[in-house]
Amino acid sequence: MNWEGKPMKDLITTEVGMRDGLQMESRFVPTNEKIEIGLGLIGAGLRRIEATSFVSPKAVPQLVDAAEVIGALRGRGATLAALVPNLRGAERALEAGVDELVMFISASEEHNRRNVNRSIAESLETIAPVAQAVAGSGRGLRAAVSTAFGCPWQGDVTPEEVARVIEGFAAQGVRAVTLGDTTGMATPPIVRRLCDKLADWFPEVELTLHFHNTRGIGLVNVMAGLDAGIVRYESALGGLGGCPFAKGATGNICTEDLVYMAGEMGLKTGVDLSSLIALAQRMQAILGHDLPGQVMKAGPRLVAA
Amino acid sequence: MNWEGKPMKDLITTEVGMRDGLQMESRFVPTNEKIEIGLGLIGAGLRRIEATSFVSPKAVPQLVDAAEVIGALRGRGATLAALVPNLRGAERALEAGVDELVMFISASEEHNRRNVNRSIAESLETIAPVAQAVAGSGRGLRAAVSTAFGCPWQGDVTPEEVARVIEGFAAQGVRAVTLGDTTGMATPPIVRRLCDKLADWFPEVELTLHFHNTRGIGLVNVMAGLDAGIVRYESALGGLGGCPFAKGATGNICTEDLVYMAGEMGLKTGVDLSSLIALAQRMQAILGHDLPGQVMKAGPRLVAA
Repeated sequence: MNWEGKPMKDLITTEVGMRDGLQMESRFVPTNEKIEIGLGLIGAGLRRIEATSFVSPKAVPQLVDAAEVIGALRGRGATLAALVPNLRGAERALEAGVDELVMFISASEEHNRRNVNRSIAESLETIAPVAQAVAGSGRGLRAAVSTAFGCPWQGDVTPEEVARVIEGFAAQGVRAVTLGDTTGMATPPIVRRLCDKLADWFPEVELTLHFHNTRGIGLVNVMAGLDAGIVRYESALGGLGGCPFAKGATGNICTEDLVYMAGEMGLKTGVDLSSLIALAQRMQAILGHDLPGQVMKAGPRLVAA
Repeated sequence: MNWEGKPMKDLITTEVGMRDGLQMESRFVPTNEKIEIGLGLIGAGLRRIEATSFVSPKAVPQLVDAAEVIGALRGRGATLAALVPNLRGAERALEAGVDELVMFISASEEHNRRNVNRSIAESLETIAPVAQAVAGSGRGLRAAVSTAFGCPWQGDVTPEEVARVIEGFAAQGVRAVTLGDTTGMATPPIVRRLCDKLADWFPEVELTLHFHNTRGIGLVNVMAGLDAGIVRYESALGGLGGCPFAKGATGNICTEDLVYMAGEMGLKTGVDLSSLIALAQRMQAILGHDLPGQVMKAGPRLVAA
């Protein structure tokens, strides 16, 4: 039983730092160091890792070693996910041995156009060929809806706009859906309202929430998600990542801080916090700059000063 | 009505950055700059400011100008609070025109001894003379219970230990009680359990929660406090302050981030967020180093990129 007397649940984390974090770094992290971090994450108990992105090496040179990273982390007990922007990326990901392919489409027209230079309608048409390539491969396809909680250009995004993108994926049989808080605009009431509506409209869909801590309330939004019954979250080691629109703003919610919070609330994550803290410190050393994670600096609460 | 359909409440903030923040800074902030910040806080709508501390100038040289700061901020519509460690400090605070005197005692024996070199029993005996000095002055006396949510040496702190300190104050007629999360050890279940028990045991006491963001969940603990019906919180401009036990760890929860979150949840604070952000940026310039506040970097959510 957890602290509210409800049956204790698992909190299922997907580590996205190697993808959503490293793509924001100005320097290239050597492949062997990426693999070291990936193996460390698996060793710490992470069972889901979004490890890289099969995008154009010109667009994201930081992740040019996608196939090599996947090759080194395969078959070690973790589900490996990777971002694929199109059929070509999907084919490369399948060939490399990715377990779960992740396709992104924005809920806001303006963000989608600026991000991939296409309308949402055009992006929705790219789903079918990827879904067909994945079908029968034994691998999974996941939908990631960007700007699901707000768009820096459009402002508020309606549940109907998010539903439109999910419908496009659902029509191709996709049930795994991540709602991305791309620029940290989620708030507790928006999280609650969107999750409740989507659960009504798409009872067959399994929602995952991906929050950024851009405005300091990333973990508060996790609390709102838990209240709405969502148990799947994405986070990044050390709070890796950033916001392209706000200098100095932080990125993804931090995995150690999330695992610490979950543990204190009686939710099982299967992740060893001490190993994760050591790994975040190692990541900081690799990058040569501070990461925003807090527990990695202060330690768990019952370690004596 | 707020987002959960409950009647909308006020969230009452006390700004503590000038005391709990500046006492942690290595350099002395000039008196005129302190006054500039204090006036800015009042201008932004803050109605409660813990502005300084009447402790020994040898112990806290950063706040040697306590009387001057209070003198400059008096009579401008805000309640001015100040920390007083003993009768001598209380007399100085009363003479300077402080509206609310704040006395600290730790709930953990070890922390109290290390902090003030006294047992809790000895500290409790110091309340009566201060209460007598305040009585009839028209000013208020507030109890602050340090390490109420955990102690870095003792570990967990029980509600009974917190109650013992509150009883000591209540016996002298003190009804305003702040629970201090001195080293960032509060968690949602601890907050909920402690607040519920204290509300039962001390129905006449008005609780204020003082959280630090040391482990990344300061605002999550505010959510837990709101769930427990607590509407009074202490926070610091820009997230000023730090943790003497963890290098690089952040300090108090950040006032702008709290005001942003409250506003998004439909809670009234009476504080103008834009003014507060500008003031946090000014504070950063005065100190010459980054502050951990997030909204001051990213801005409110609906400002176009």
